[in-house]
Amino acid sequence: MGEFDLIEKYFKSRFAVEREDLPLGIGDDCALMTVTPGHQLAVSTDVLVQGTHFFADVDPHTLGHKCLAVNLSDLAACGARPKAFALALTLPSLQDAWLQAFANGLYALANAHGCALIGGDTTRGPLSICITVFGEVPKGQGIKRSGAQAGDDLYVSGTLGDARWALEALQGNIPMDEQTLLSTRVRLESPTPRVELGLALRGLASAAMDLSDGLLGDLGHLLKASKKGARLDLRQVLNSPVLSACMKASPADQAIKRLLQGGDDYELLFAASPIHRARIEDLSKALALPLTMVGEVTDNEGLELMHAKEILGVQSVQDLGSYDHFL
Amino acid sequence: MGEFDLIEKYFKSRFAVEREDLPLGIGDDCALMTVTPGHQLAVSTDVLVQGTHFFADVDPHTLGHKCLAVNLSDLAACGARPKAFALALTLPSLQDAWLQAFANGLYALANAHGCALIGGDTTRGPLSICITVFGEVPKGQGIKRSGAQAGDDLYVSGTLGDARWALEALQGNIPMDEQTLLSTRVRLESPTPRVELGLALRGLASAAMDLSDGLLGDLGHLLKASKKGARLDLRQVLNSPVLSACMKASPADQAIKRLLQGGDDYELLFAASPIHRARIEDLSKALALPLTMVGEVTDNEGLELMHAKEILGVQSVQDLGSYDHFL
Repeated sequence: MGEFDLIEKYFKSRFAVEREDLPLGIGDDCALMTVTPGHQLAVSTDVLVQGTHFFADVDPHTLGHKCLAVNLSDLAACGARPKAFALALTLPSLQDAWLQAFANGLYALANAHGCALIGGDTTRGPLSICITVFGEVPKGQGIKRSGAQAGDDLYVSGTLGDARWALEALQGNIPMDEQTLLSTRVRLESPTPRVELGLALRGLASAAMDLSDGLLGDLGHLLKASKKGARLDLRQVLNSPVLSACMKASPADQAIKRLLQGGDDYELLFAASPIHRARIEDLSKALALPLTMVGEVTDNEGLELMHAKEILGVQSVQDLGSYDHFL
Repeated sequence: MGEFDLIEKYFKSRFAVEREDLPLGIGDDCALMTVTPGHQLAVSTDVLVQGTHFFADVDPHTLGHKCLAVNLSDLAACGARPKAFALALTLPSLQDAWLQAFANGLYALANAHGCALIGGDTTRGPLSICITVFGEVPKGQGIKRSGAQAGDDLYVSGTLGDARWALEALQGNIPMDEQTLLSTRVRLESPTPRVELGLALRGLASAAMDLSDGLLGDLGHLLKASKKGARLDLRQVLNSPVLSACMKASPADQAIKRLLQGGDDYELLFAASPIHRARIEDLSKALALPLTMVGEVTDNEGLELMHAKEILGVQSVQDLGSYDHFL
């Protein structure tokens, strides 16, 4: 099968929806997009590479989901509404069942968010997936990392740590009972991008980013961009329902360090003025999604961990690090 | 070195230019772009993978050039003006000299076209480069593959075949004298995207595409999209100054078949009404770029090769094929 047949078979025919804002899609040299007047285009690119981001035997359906989910998570952090995406797929070989499942997982999520495949590239090589996603945000309303103000509350959505603990268990580093693995593995392999939350945070959050490399490192990036510091209450961060199971499975401080240095949570971290507390509580109920206040932004740069000594046996954040692809 | 330092060191600091249409660039979850009123955004994605598209010992400077050039070539085919690009870089390791040279090659071309790096991703894995490029085109003026009309002239820019012959020589498949290799290798490794030509073809070309997989296959895609056929004059296609050297280096019909099944020309193929002949001649002079009429579009679907028997010893196009990444 040639490249063109492949695109036709698995991808092109799946998106017959005609949209006025996407006058030219797959099959030409370029796709064409119209941006809604008064809006800006938000763009994000992420690559998932076998061996670095997923195992060779990953379920292709969940891989299709995840490679788009991590991109939609970036749009969510920016408060942008998903619009379209371009897919560059590098494959070692053509396997019908694999491609079918991959496309199914990808499209299920794409369709749920009205995100149309508008173009891409397929080529032969070691398995990797590069997606560039496009969203729209009213001009000037995009949420940045750099807007946090001293005195703002810091929030995280959902629960933290599950994905990292599942990864450790799958790699054989920690034991985990079957029930816990089932519930954490879905967080690792099928994260839910917080798109609705991101849209609702426009005008509410002073700064936001998605948590993909662990709370400590990512918070550090947000604070650096905002030129601020923060006090983080470790007790509030420990909100996962499987935390106690994971703390049984491995030394408690190790489980918590893994949570903090994490990776792959794909929750949103955001700052908001205390005047918005009631609105954020309401939002949490409306979305049926925990929005946990985990600390506050401070004027002096640096990150203070509250209750670090009693929980982790360390005095400061210096003893910890962040996951980084090139460390 | 961490991922963030890498972006900072080689990429972020290189693009300090502030542009009103790019209010948020590298370093946030998303980049933000404003599209000029009355314009559409043209988008294209291409991946270059080591072992498939380039050799492991490729000069990183030319690789940096080429991975953007192939994307700009897609914008050119669409008549879009380059605006920005996102870079996803997968690297097996961090080598300072390599990254420096790669970034230099990339930026030299990007700066020449006012194309700003707005975001991306870096990760560890087998070497590959995925670029998504953005251009602007006045609404409704994007040139598509599908607009060719019966009676239109068919043109190619530049000269064809050189890149493929260089590839064959470098792979040891054909002998080539040093002088010829020097001149053809630059076409393989540092193709010139025909951006100016693409812009000038707005309103002039009825259909266009870039030649990246060989004239015959690519022409087939244009004709299929336009639901038309063509007569192709092989004598006109043989316009490379090194053709005779390459025909000496390998059987003449083999050299020509390689040209036709080619790959990597990154010239533009376009159709235009005969009423535009004088304008196209003037354009060729103004750009100092050959624009060679190689045939005409016909109403009956199918591709007729003129002078195929005398030049190739075959009667029809059926005996030939097209390069395809997955063949």
